[in-house]
Amino acid sequence: MPSPNPKGQSHELHVSELDVIATTGSTYPLQKKFQTAEFLRSMPHLRVRIPFNTALLRLRSKVIAIITKSLSDMEFVQTHTPVITSSDCEGAGEVFQVDLATKQESKNEGQCFFRSPKYLTVSSQLHLEALAHALGNVWTLSPTFRAEKSDTSRHLSEFYMLEAEMNFVNSMHEVMSIIQIITAAVIRDLYDSQTGNVILSRGPLGEQELRQRWDGLMQERWKCITYTEAIKILQSSSHTFKYEPKWGSSLQAEHERYLTRALGTTNSNCISPIFVTHYPKAVKPFYMLPSEPTKVGLETVECFDVLVPDVGELAGGSMREHRLEPLLNSMFINGLIPNLAPSDQELRDLKWYVELRKWGSVPHGGFGLGFDRLLSYLSGVPNIREVVTFPRWVGRCDC
Amino acid sequence: MPSPNPKGQSHELHVSELDVIATTGSTYPLQKKFQTAEFLRSMPHLRVRIPFNTALLRLRSKVIAIITKSLSDMEFVQTHTPVITSSDCEGAGEVFQVDLATKQESKNEGQCFFRSPKYLTVSSQLHLEALAHALGNVWTLSPTFRAEKSDTSRHLSEFYMLEAEMNFVNSMHEVMSIIQIITAAVIRDLYDSQTGNVILSRGPLGEQELRQRWDGLMQERWKCITYTEAIKILQSSSHTFKYEPKWGSSLQAEHERYLTRALGTTNSNCISPIFVTHYPKAVKPFYMLPSEPTKVGLETVECFDVLVPDVGELAGGSMREHRLEPLLNSMFINGLIPNLAPSDQELRDLKWYVELRKWGSVPHGGFGLGFDRLLSYLSGVPNIREVVTFPRWVGRCDC
Repeated sequence: MPSPNPKGQSHELHVSELDVIATTGSTYPLQKKFQTAEFLRSMPHLRVRIPFNTALLRLRSKVIAIITKSLSDMEFVQTHTPVITSSDCEGAGEVFQVDLATKQESKNEGQCFFRSPKYLTVSSQLHLEALAHALGNVWTLSPTFRAEKSDTSRHLSEFYMLEAEMNFVNSMHEVMSIIQIITAAVIRDLYDSQTGNVILSRGPLGEQELRQRWDGLMQERWKCITYTEAIKILQSSSHTFKYEPKWGSSLQAEHERYLTRALGTTNSNCISPIFVTHYPKAVKPFYMLPSEPTKVGLETVECFDVLVPDVGELAGGSMREHRLEPLLNSMFINGLIPNLAPSDQELRDLKWYVELRKWGSVPHGGFGLGFDRLLSYLSGVPNIREVVTFPRWVGRCDC
Repeated sequence: MPSPNPKGQSHELHVSELDVIATTGSTYPLQKKFQTAEFLRSMPHLRVRIPFNTALLRLRSKVIAIITKSLSDMEFVQTHTPVITSSDCEGAGEVFQVDLATKQESKNEGQCFFRSPKYLTVSSQLHLEALAHALGNVWTLSPTFRAEKSDTSRHLSEFYMLEAEMNFVNSMHEVMSIIQIITAAVIRDLYDSQTGNVILSRGPLGEQELRQRWDGLMQERWKCITYTEAIKILQSSSHTFKYEPKWGSSLQAEHERYLTRALGTTNSNCISPIFVTHYPKAVKPFYMLPSEPTKVGLETVECFDVLVPDVGELAGGSMREHRLEPLLNSMFINGLIPNLAPSDQELRDLKWYVELRKWGSVPHGGFGLGFDRLLSYLSGVPNIREVVTFPRWVGRCDC
């Protein structure tokens, strides 16, 4: 009922009957006091009962719904790509292997359930490319796995990736714009929602900085620089880096941090993500489309990363090599095939991927966005382990 | 432009310029002639280019979008439950194990990435229960895994399950009604869509039978019988079964087939799913809530299956045992714990699940619906391997 003192609170609850459904003892572990993140992490099944953690779950649900609608409005087809796969998309090798539980294997030692070793997917991209060739623009929000022994606040062994692939695309700026359209839609709807307000007002980062992030995600133009320009900025900076910025090397977390702070904060009211494009061909996967040739030894590819403060790389994408001969050439240079005219057997687990080109392809490109990282950035929760209810990383798989 | 002969076709395409982007040779494997499903299954990356297979992918996308909206409208929170888990929900034991790829393991033979063996999830239910205790009604559409060596048209090793869990639910009829609301929403929207029309008119089953199925899914009341009644119907039938129907045994596929044909076809215009409820406690998992006691030796649980022709079990659900003592009792009877007052160590991987009750629970229940089976039923495609682009089953994990 309306409160007799509306200044203090708008309504009062008068209880006429109370029905106790269940009780907990006085040893209930979630006592009404400050608890460290590490302590709460030891009971993921209970920490979700803390109001802000519940809000994080509602945020996830809300963002899924907004993105689903946004991509559907743009006529992207949502797909389910496989989790158990034969090929390792990135060539990184840090993959989980899947097979029958050991106890069952004893009878036929060494015999695989799927006839040969299979792995948990590290990216849906290659499969999305196959689907895009049939459907046009496609996307998926799927679990993705990395067996990296990283114990950082930004890495998990199991995480959700939002991946999209677009056909008949002539410039990666078309791909980049989709990321901007989606994130703008997310912020617009969050500002209008109860869930968004709870996150803004109760997040660990404080409302002002969170609003700066949110407003930055809605900015029409995010700053866009090439990798080569980024290296020049880093080299000419007075900041001392642990790793020297050098053309040809990957950008380190400290470099990304510097760039987002220096370039993303265009004015005091918002912090925008930045695009870094055209990385050296040598540090990127075989399937990326080379840029127009510039200087020999400085070959780059048509790719981009989206960088944001604290979280670092939020998304990455590229145009794909859609022509058969150059693709084989790139596979050969990357040591994936022994010669430029490989037999089916030599193509092994990438035979089907090569066939996507052999049997008719078109210019296409796509991106992958770390969904849990997006939630971490949106909520200001610094450790990605807190935005995932049951996080998995090296040595940890509770519940 | 408009056709000069509008009776034959509404429009004509006049080409003024043609740009060949890519060519395929004359050996293109998808020649314009009849190809068997088995032949097409050997090239999943290409068979999606066949128009009806493309329509199946659009159907999947459409159904995901409708269900997402429908559940969101009912204020269910969408969640992501983990794929890599410690516990085996069904106690079936037919699980895949996950660990580092062998090549990396050599250095530390026998040491697990997650410290102890972990498995691919067989159901999200237990984790959904934890989330429901914090959020109220929750759902997920997640990949699920079974290492069964089944080579049938209804089973896959990797498939998508739509699972929901509801809190403060006093009767499983509330849970059952959600399934009806969702499927009715799917059919309503499909009838209004281009995708739906393509499926109806080009499906392998024929438009009339598909319409019967679709109309049946929209019927307000699906027939609902108890397991005990089902056994009586089977026993009094003149049909000869391979497996004798007997109270206490699971229903076989042939039993389910008979029941759906006998009870689902209420009139010539539609074929409805049927609910079979109250299965014997002994054939169901430990977490199901017992029914009110009837005769000793005939104990049943508050559960239901949804059966449809051809596909068989489309969904299943139950009320969950939410009281601590009876849950421990059921775990003891099922051999999961050595005594009725187990130590934390004896509770092992189910400690957290028991704690959901120990620290306050409420009456709740939920269901799981085989998403790929739903698509198979909706499209009339008899083999579930054709509704999944990259199907995985024993011995098969192509691409």
